[in-house]
Parts: sequence; structure tokens; C-alpha cells
Amino acid sequence: MTYRYELPMKVRDYELDCQGIVNNANYQHYIEHTRHEFIFAHGISFTDLHERGIDAVVARLTMSFKTPLRSGDDFLSCLNVQKEGIKYVFLQDIYRQSDHQLCLRAKVDIVCLVDGELVRNVPELDKLLEE
Amino acid sequence: MTYRYELPMKVRDYELDCQGIVNNANYQHYIEHTRHEFIFAHGISFTDLHERGIDAVVARLTMSFKTPLRSGDDFLSCLNVQKEGIKYVFLQDIYRQSDHQLCLRAKVDIVCLVDGELVRNVPELDKLLEE
Amino acid sequence: MTYRYELPMKVRDYELDCQGIVNNANYQHYIEHTRHEFIFAHGISFTDLHERGIDAVVARLTMSFKTPLRSGDDFLSCLNVQKEGIKYVFLQDIYRQSDHQLCLRAKVDIVCLVDGELVRNVPELDKLLEE
Amino acid sequence: MTYRYELPMKVRDYELDCQGIVNNANYQHYIEHTRHEFIFAHGISFTDLHERGIDAVVARLTMSFKTPLRSGDDFLSCLNVQKEGIKYVFLQDIYRQSDHQLCLRAKVDIVCLVDGELVRNVPELDKLLEE
Repeated sequence: MTYRYELPMKVRDYELDCQGIVNNANYQHYIEHTRHEFIFAHGISFTDLHERGIDAVVARLTMSFKTPLRSGDDFLSCLNVQKEGIKYVFLQDIYRQSDHQLCLRAKVDIVCLVDGELVRNVPELDKLLEE
Repeated sequence: MTYRYELPMKVRDYELDCQGIVNNANYQHYIEHTRHEFIFAHGISFTDLHERGIDAVVARLTMSFKTPLRSGDDFLSCLNVQKEGIKYVFLQDIYRQSDHQLCLRAKVDIVCLVDGELVRNVPELDKLLEE
Repeated sequence: MTYRYELPMKVRDYELDCQGIVNNANYQHYIEHTRHEFIFAHGISFTDLHERGIDAVVARLTMSFKTPLRSGDDFLSCLNVQKEGIKYVFLQDIYRQSDHQLCLRAKVDIVCLVDGELVRNVPELDKLLEE
Repeated sequence: MTYRYELPMKVRDYELDCQGIVNNANYQHYIEHTRHEFIFAHGISFTDLHERGIDAVVARLTMSFKTPLRSGDDFLSCLNVQKEGIKYVFLQDIYRQSDHQLCLRAKVDIVCLVDGELVRNVPELDKLLEE
């Protein structure tokens, strides 16, 4: 599979739970951080957008947990993005580096608010859709 | 709507992000904690199960974010559970207490592993399905 | 020992680490939340203060970890406050409810910034010092 | 100042609080992760030690917050370690990369338990003290 953006990351021990695997909520952190880094690589910052009254918010999130990450695991957090109606849809997969095993498959629907009102397009985010 | 279990909770300021709303990953914490408290109310503890080799793990999670919670908000975390094939499916909703606004609607598919092997039923969890 | 404020709390399983005990950073969350609830009980909110340009920030923090909290533990988060020069000093202790064992002893030095400038006194916080 | 170990890290937006700065508890995560990476660089893993009955636990922690980290900041997490009686003492500083500003100064006292009993020395950790 081909991705628009790939971010190498590593499990930190404070992310583990008492079962010795990464607590599920941290995958949401991982994929949020990946989106922010992807966007930042296009010269855009979520916090800058927020200060200008533009908020990109997650409307819906689906995550399938395939293989748990463990202490010390290196992983690759991968991303594609497409437009579906009003939504910017991020398809995000996480792979364990040691054996390329798929760990997480996620779909994140993002909508944009400008001064609290839903808008169809934000030029800064439309840039992300171009190859 | 009627729920099997309802847990009153309150936003903690460290859960807010730089937009002044609860960071999405915390909703995953909220609903995980609600499941654990629900199960604990039936005399079962996830950590005890884990020590006996029984792991209930999230296979799939869908969350729809409706209304953001903010600093100081009281909320009610509600839960239903049903069996669908091999899965224990938790339907979990979060309402803001001040106006009963729906904040989150989630569906959590849980499967059980005994000593690492997928099993269809765990008697301790089947108890949760009885009215 | 007598405290100005006591907040009953309970360990949530997502706060545990792979040793089965509460990860140390969560104690910082516990005592921050306790300060915010204490201040809120006096009709003040940290987020309101922030929006008015008043930021109470932690300058220094000392924590002694005495007894680890575990899954399901109820605990009491206790607080005293005093003024030392420019600082508002919070003395914060956490006790396990089951046996009143001391779990954490913390000292938190807070200073106040108004529009980014260090100030000696904030009337809203001085109210906290009165018996 | 010279350090035994330096780890480059970057602020992730989910670590920010509603003041737009890194929430203090995350610094505890940063320095814990730095210790674990330092130790891992010496071929030791905290989780492995734990599974062999050896637990290195934080007994006391002092943190001075100097300059807040913000969205997108790169920082360097630095570490020295020395033995003081029964304790392994980690001196940990965090610097903002852009201007080498000191952000955090921390002192972390660690003691070791073997099968729950306090011990004076753990050979695996003594290795860390050698230049």
C-alpha cells in the first residue's frame, strides 16, 4: 500500500497498560500527532489555524486494533487523505517496524468550523489533497 | 433511551486541549473506565481477569463526536452490552448533565483471549448480558 | 493532620502502568485536579482566570512517593495552602482510603502571571488563604 | 554543562493544555522516557527488569519549571546519574532547541526493589554509573 505520509515513532513505556501492551487511547494520540505532523509538513499548524478561528475537529473515528504494540516497539504511522462531501477523511495505518505487521487501521472524519460555523472547504486543508 | 449502567463523571482540566475542549483520546479513557466500573459492579475486575490469563481486548471501536465537553462539565457515561457472535458489543453514550446533550456515541467490540487464544465465551462476561 | 480541602477519588485502570501500579505522572494529574476543584469550590475557575489574562503556573514541584496506588483503590486527595513571599504554596497529600496509608506527599509552588508579568498577589487566589 | 545522555524530542499537540503550553505532567513523561531510553542504550529494559522481579521505582521527584514548551517545539532531554547511598539519582534537564533555553530542571531519586524488598545495588543499574 502507498501512503502520502509516513512518520516513524516508538512506543514509550508510560503508554503501556497493566497488560504490558499500549493502552488503546494512545493510538488516538499517535494518529492525531501524525496528522498534525503531516499538516505541519505542508506549512500549516493546527494551533495557528485555531488562533485564526479555524478549527478542524474529528466528527467520527473508527479504529480496528490488529496487533498490540509493546515496550520498545518501533512503528510506522502512515496516512492518506481524501475529500468526501464536507469531510476530510484520513485513512491511517500503523505498522510494527520489526515485521511490518499491521497494528492499527483507522478512519478519521474531520470537519471544519470557522468561527463555530461548519464550512465545506478550508483552502489550507484543500492543499493537503493535492498530490 | 434506557441503559444498563450509568456513571456520573466530571471533566478534569488536564483533559482539555489547546482548543479549550476535552481532547478526543480522553473519551476513550472515559468509556474504558465506565466499562471497568460496570464490570466491577458485577464483582469482576479486568486486572484480576488478566492475572488469571483472561484478556478482554478491544477489537474495534467507533466513536461519533457530537458536542465537545469543556472545563467543569459534569457528564453521564452510559452503557449497554450485547453479544454478537464472538464479540461482546458495548454501546456507550456520554451526555452533558446540564442540558442532556449527547456528546459522544460509541460502539466498542470486545473479544476475549484465554492464554492468548480467542474464545467465544467467558462465563464472567456472560453474566454481564443478563438483565 | 487537618486539611483545608479533601477530594475523594478513585484509580482508573488506564492510569496503571505495566508494573500494575499507578504511573507516577498521574499523581501530578490527581493533585492538579484537586487544586482546581478546591479553587472552584471558592467560585474561581482556572480557565476563567486564564481568559482574563491571569495565569497561575507551577514554578516548582516536589513529590515523595510513599505507597503505590493500584487498580480499584479509592483515595483521598488532601490540600493545604499558604503564602510564602511571591508564591502560593500548596501542600498536598494522598491517602489510600482502605487503610489511611499515605501514598503521596507533595509541595507545589505556584506563581501568578498577569498578562505575562509576575505579580505578588491575585485577589482571587488570596481568598483561598482565609480560613 | 555536560550530560551522559541526550535525547532529542518534540512537543506533540495532545500534550498541550488549555493555556497553549505543555501540561506539567507531560514533563514527567518526557523524563521517564529519557531514563528508559538511556537505560535501553545500555542494553537494559525496565520491563525486562520488572519481569525478573526487579523494580526501579521513583521515591522522590523535584521539578523546577523554567520556560514552558509550546506547540511544535523541539527540545533536548538531558541526563546525568549518580549514586547517593541507596539511591540512584538522575539529574535531568530539558532545553528548547531553538534557543537552548532551559525549560525544566529535575532531580529524580530512584530506589530498587527485588521481589518487593529494598536493595542497595542492582548490577544492571550500577553499569549506568560508569563513565
